[in-house]
Amino acid sequence: MRYKIVLEYDGSAFHGWQRQIGLRTVQGETERALSHISLGASVTASGRTDEGVHALGQVAHFDYFGELDAQTLARALNHWLPEDISVVGCSVVPDSFDARKSAKRKTYEYVMYTSPVPSPLRRTRECRIGDRADVAAMNAAASRFVGTHDFSAFMTSGSSAKTFTRTIYSSSVAERDGRIIFRITGSGFLYNMVRIMAGALMRVGRGEKREEDIERALSTGDRRLMPDVAPPEALYLVSVEYDGI
Amino acid sequence: MRYKIVLEYDGSAFHGWQRQIGLRTVQGETERALSHISLGASVTASGRTDEGVHALGQVAHFDYFGELDAQTLARALNHWLPEDISVVGCSVVPDSFDARKSAKRKTYEYVMYTSPVPSPLRRTRECRIGDRADVAAMNAAASRFVGTHDFSAFMTSGSSAKTFTRTIYSSSVAERDGRIIFRITGSGFLYNMVRIMAGALMRVGRGEKREEDIERALSTGDRRLMPDVAPPEALYLVSVEYDGI
Repeated sequence: MRYKIVLEYDGSAFHGWQRQIGLRTVQGETERALSHISLGASVTASGRTDEGVHALGQVAHFDYFGELDAQTLARALNHWLPEDISVVGCSVVPDSFDARKSAKRKTYEYVMYTSPVPSPLRRTRECRIGDRADVAAMNAAASRFVGTHDFSAFMTSGSSAKTFTRTIYSSSVAERDGRIIFRITGSGFLYNMVRIMAGALMRVGRGEKREEDIERALSTGDRRLMPDVAPPEALYLVSVEYDGI
Repeated sequence: MRYKIVLEYDGSAFHGWQRQIGLRTVQGETERALSHISLGASVTASGRTDEGVHALGQVAHFDYFGELDAQTLARALNHWLPEDISVVGCSVVPDSFDARKSAKRKTYEYVMYTSPVPSPLRRTRECRIGDRADVAAMNAAASRFVGTHDFSAFMTSGSSAKTFTRTIYSSSVAERDGRIIFRITGSGFLYNMVRIMAGALMRVGRGEKREEDIERALSTGDRRLMPDVAPPEALYLVSVEYDGI
């Protein structure tokens, strides 16, 4: 039987999602927890998250042929998982379900704040733009990402992607609960794409770049126009959506 | 010249406020930063915060006879301070000002949440009550703290306090931004007082204690009625108020 799990994790102490020998990773810890319940199970996620990136709703699948029902299985996994990973959802899915290949839409949030000095309490979860930020300009710039574009300018080399065209369904910047949040939903994302977008939007917020610069990066694909990769600790994979699941 | 500083800190990596040989403390780090600017300066806070407790607005004073103005002094301190402490305010005050003795009111917040499973991302900053909580009952119970009472039942032994009577000006529990926040302002607080109150309120939220139990603890002073000390990582010293400063 195939199971879909939804995972929340604090990325701070992980070398990203992907299993790596000798390093603590989310996949490694999740498979280790599952190994207490089921032999030799491997866990496939909707996609990797990088070192330091958090998840509120990462989705993964695995096969399990034991006797526990989904709810008991989730409880058992949570028993074995370290406290920086939790299973927040678990359900049986058709064998054709593949957390990576079946994913239709992903939503990320990049969380920022303004303050005269860096905040010790926000430092591990949010990124400081500066003393102040022009949120309206950031939102206007963010809206330029919507649509189907070649996002070559918003990608770090080293990606294994073969095509650079992605579709963005929504993209906005708004203030919420004292934070400035860049929220973006798309068909998929290239390597470091959201962090490069966030880096560009922070420059817009500080008045160092304009909406037109985003437009030009999209039309030329010139990565040198978008030099910043915003830090990982402020990035959250919020949800992954599937058709009919 | 005497200076008042307002400090924000992430308490996670400190053994509390008070200087202790061989341990990393907020006072120790602040005095070390100040020692780069001024010889032999000691820093006095409004009161100690315990190991793991955070501050958004701890207040302290020190004497400085150099040439930097308040703003430059704050910048210099922030240069030398570690990233888990920031000076967020700095001003010259009369020599009679004493951060501890002159303090008139302190406000703390204890931050809680409800969720079917513990949250990896909230774990370091908030305390989980359980699956759900009766916030109205918690607020009614919290309101019982208002007034002048003997708070002996809400104190861990080992306190150096000589009197156990304190005045609480306001005390409430409310939902804000997806969190459940216990906010309390008083003339002063006994050792672990806010954390014992928060422990009692969480039991009320889970239906394990009632408003009347709080009332009885206040009237009898019996510490055994209030057995829980809620964990420190969800407690924030929000502000300290002074007359005329």
